[in-house]
Amino acid sequence: MANLLSLNELSLQEIDHILDRAEEIRKMGNEGWLEPNHQLVANLFFEPSTRTRFSFETAEKRLGYQVLNFSSKASSTQKGESLYDTVRTMQAIGVNAVVIRHRQEGYYRQLAGSIHLPILNAGDGAGDHPTQALLDLLTIRQEFLLFQGLTVAIIGDLRYSRVARSDAEVLTRLGCRVLLSGPEEWKNDALPGERTTVDEAVEEADAIIMLRIQHERHEQSMKMTKEDYHRRFGLTQERASRMKHDSIIMHPGPINRGVELDGELVESDRSRYFKQINNGVVIRMACLEWALQTGKGAEIHERVAEKW
Amino acid sequence: MANLLSLNELSLQEIDHILDRAEEIRKMGNEGWLEPNHQLVANLFFEPSTRTRFSFETAEKRLGYQVLNFSSKASSTQKGESLYDTVRTMQAIGVNAVVIRHRQEGYYRQLAGSIHLPILNAGDGAGDHPTQALLDLLTIRQEFLLFQGLTVAIIGDLRYSRVARSDAEVLTRLGCRVLLSGPEEWKNDALPGERTTVDEAVEEADAIIMLRIQHERHEQSMKMTKEDYHRRFGLTQERASRMKHDSIIMHPGPINRGVELDGELVESDRSRYFKQINNGVVIRMACLEWALQTGKGAEIHERVAEKW
Amino acid sequence: MANLLSLNELSLQEIDHILDRAEEIRKMGNEGWLEPNHQLVANLFFEPSTRTRFSFETAEKRLGYQVLNFSSKASSTQKGESLYDTVRTMQAIGVNAVVIRHRQEGYYRQLAGSIHLPILNAGDGAGDHPTQALLDLLTIRQEFLLFQGLTVAIIGDLRYSRVARSDAEVLTRLGCRVLLSGPEEWKNDALPGERTTVDEAVEEADAIIMLRIQHERHEQSMKMTKEDYHRRFGLTQERASRMKHDSIIMHPGPINRGVELDGELVESDRSRYFKQINNGVVIRMACLEWALQTGKGAEIHERVAEKW
Repeated sequence: MANLLSLNELSLQEIDHILDRAEEIRKMGNEGWLEPNHQLVANLFFEPSTRTRFSFETAEKRLGYQVLNFSSKASSTQKGESLYDTVRTMQAIGVNAVVIRHRQEGYYRQLAGSIHLPILNAGDGAGDHPTQALLDLLTIRQEFLLFQGLTVAIIGDLRYSRVARSDAEVLTRLGCRVLLSGPEEWKNDALPGERTTVDEAVEEADAIIMLRIQHERHEQSMKMTKEDYHRRFGLTQERASRMKHDSIIMHPGPINRGVELDGELVESDRSRYFKQINNGVVIRMACLEWALQTGKGAEIHERVAEKW
Repeated sequence: MANLLSLNELSLQEIDHILDRAEEIRKMGNEGWLEPNHQLVANLFFEPSTRTRFSFETAEKRLGYQVLNFSSKASSTQKGESLYDTVRTMQAIGVNAVVIRHRQEGYYRQLAGSIHLPILNAGDGAGDHPTQALLDLLTIRQEFLLFQGLTVAIIGDLRYSRVARSDAEVLTRLGCRVLLSGPEEWKNDALPGERTTVDEAVEEADAIIMLRIQHERHEQSMKMTKEDYHRRFGLTQERASRMKHDSIIMHPGPINRGVELDGELVESDRSRYFKQINNGVVIRMACLEWALQTGKGAEIHERVAEKW
Repeated sequence: MANLLSLNELSLQEIDHILDRAEEIRKMGNEGWLEPNHQLVANLFFEPSTRTRFSFETAEKRLGYQVLNFSSKASSTQKGESLYDTVRTMQAIGVNAVVIRHRQEGYYRQLAGSIHLPILNAGDGAGDHPTQALLDLLTIRQEFLLFQGLTVAIIGDLRYSRVARSDAEVLTRLGCRVLLSGPEEWKNDALPGERTTVDEAVEEADAIIMLRIQHERHEQSMKMTKEDYHRRFGLTQERASRMKHDSIIMHPGPINRGVELDGELVESDRSRYFKQINNGVVIRMACLEWALQTGKGAEIHERVAEKW
């Protein structure tokens, strides 16, 4: 049993193992479906989500698991129950793992103690989004085979993007050169990488990750118009024309078309947007398997517990 | 692979095939359930629904499909994602078909392009509701065996009812005489059929379809009281007593009892209201099978694509 | 076929049978899971719930049933459909049983008539909560083997707690001495039992059931602070230290930690809080089996019908 809370806690070997397994499952296609079995997983989404929730749910169903879906709007959290008590209740009900998205960064620190089932983090505020980072890695690896020496640009809302944080850290560990660009007021000195202009980043990168503007996390609304943002920090058709040969465009979704990314680029040859979504399912299958089955769980669990 | 967007796109042969297949499934009863398999269907309901959503979900489960349920309230559409991007995301996740209800008439025209999975329309604004029309046809056929020469009255909110539109068109094509009645301000000259008074319609029809008042689509509230509406345009006990021998009462639901229809009539011998709901499940099973398996899909798909 | 509406309608033999069967299922562990089958159950929750809904859903999935989940927010009840019509629709769709939680006490009296599928009451306003009472009984029986002669204290919001009502009645029938304590303004003369102070109750009871404050049912907010309530009527550490040897603490959940119950007591040796939740799943499995399979259904059904 193991938790997947932040990629920081995984060794490069563990990451490699998950990527390999995901690739293996992907190649099996429909053969990779398992018969209905007795694993019971609860998806606890305290923030809205389409792709991540459905991606996890699809992964769970392909693994033959039984699924409980929790919507914070229709639950006892309205009666003031804490996250700890909700998860502890799931455990008492007999759930074998929980997938959690929550607006509070590091929400899982509250769960130390008597929770003895694997927690898969599906996003904690502006903290981490480990399965997104893993699917980004899989997408990049499918393209370039090796990470060492690649240049990856992460562009946009560096301040509130959990994707930026998860990606920048793991890509740096894997030996990539990471370029960071975006509005000055949204810069984030905590991220590893070199700060550059958007134009430099676009011209030098092998892979460009355009970040979604996290409107819901900014306390005040953006000071520029969407058109302004697009012109100054977005991937316009013009900028895209200056990209390196064989370089690719990525985005964690959902896309604000015409803002972060020109709408037509989304389905262009360079775009790996839908490929990323497709990879998300097999990554989550590999993560669920790993979290439920790994013998190394106890050790990892302890490492996490110490941090708490 | 085929879409089911509007009955206009189906030939009478195709309609007949679906009705026959639904009847066949109905007769199989519980034998008609399939073992859990690897088809994955997403129900995307952007408008509230009980009977249609549960009817589709039941149909999917009886076919052994895996089901993803989407509620617009808890999803990324809150983050401004377009319908196209949502459906494209479902496709990338590996969904094999989508069932969509959306308030925008003809919403599916946005989906031309790179969507390569069957779309089953579960209602588009005041546009169409093809599975409702098909279940109405099945109910009428069970009663009268042939459509040719039957008189069917459609009474009530002709203006905003997608059921009225779908039913009037297909019944006319099938050789029925269609009578249309209801408040003058809700008449709809686009519908095929003869305009009559409610009293004439009730006395002459073999089947009477009472329409639900679409309160949610009218820009201003109804000018008459419910009692007034019932007395002037509803199926009262008194009017029902003047119905033809062997004639039947139908309603797409949900019923406003005492408004469109006297409450006691709902469970009278003439009522086929619950029969319609029951037929809905087997119709949707037949439609899902047809949409996922038909070899004629490409052709139909192109016909639709041309309209777009 | 049988309804489970209120424990009043069950004989002690029937209650005993359900408890025995639940215990049997519990001992089977994962062996108690059934293969996917053709039973279709709808969970209709018109009030928020985490533990009860997930507990029922887990029970249904372990029994291999197919599950439809209904949220009142996303359904046709927004279009004004009555509960009767909603349940009648479920029946026409082919559902084999419905689980209902509704804020209206005795909502099921509306369902007399043409509903011919088992109804399991998951809570009716301040009325009953029979599966909660059954899981409380199972928890107490696991501890003390016999009910005869036990003293059980029920403490807190006696006025609006359906748990209090269900528990007090059945425990009295089973030969327990029931003590009732709590704020004077929330007393409930309709409950069987002896009225005592909280301190007496705590000192004399073998099992203490602390009730959740039903904030959502009180017309005005509580007049004392949470700290005040805890000090005067809650189970403080100090009070708990005066409990009898081998006595246990129970709570129907969700807990307001630090109000009804000191937070640390929740996971103390005396607490059976998570045990109760765990028992809830097997109780609901036994209840679903009983409701769907019992041959005594017709008789019980008639008894209920007479009350209506």
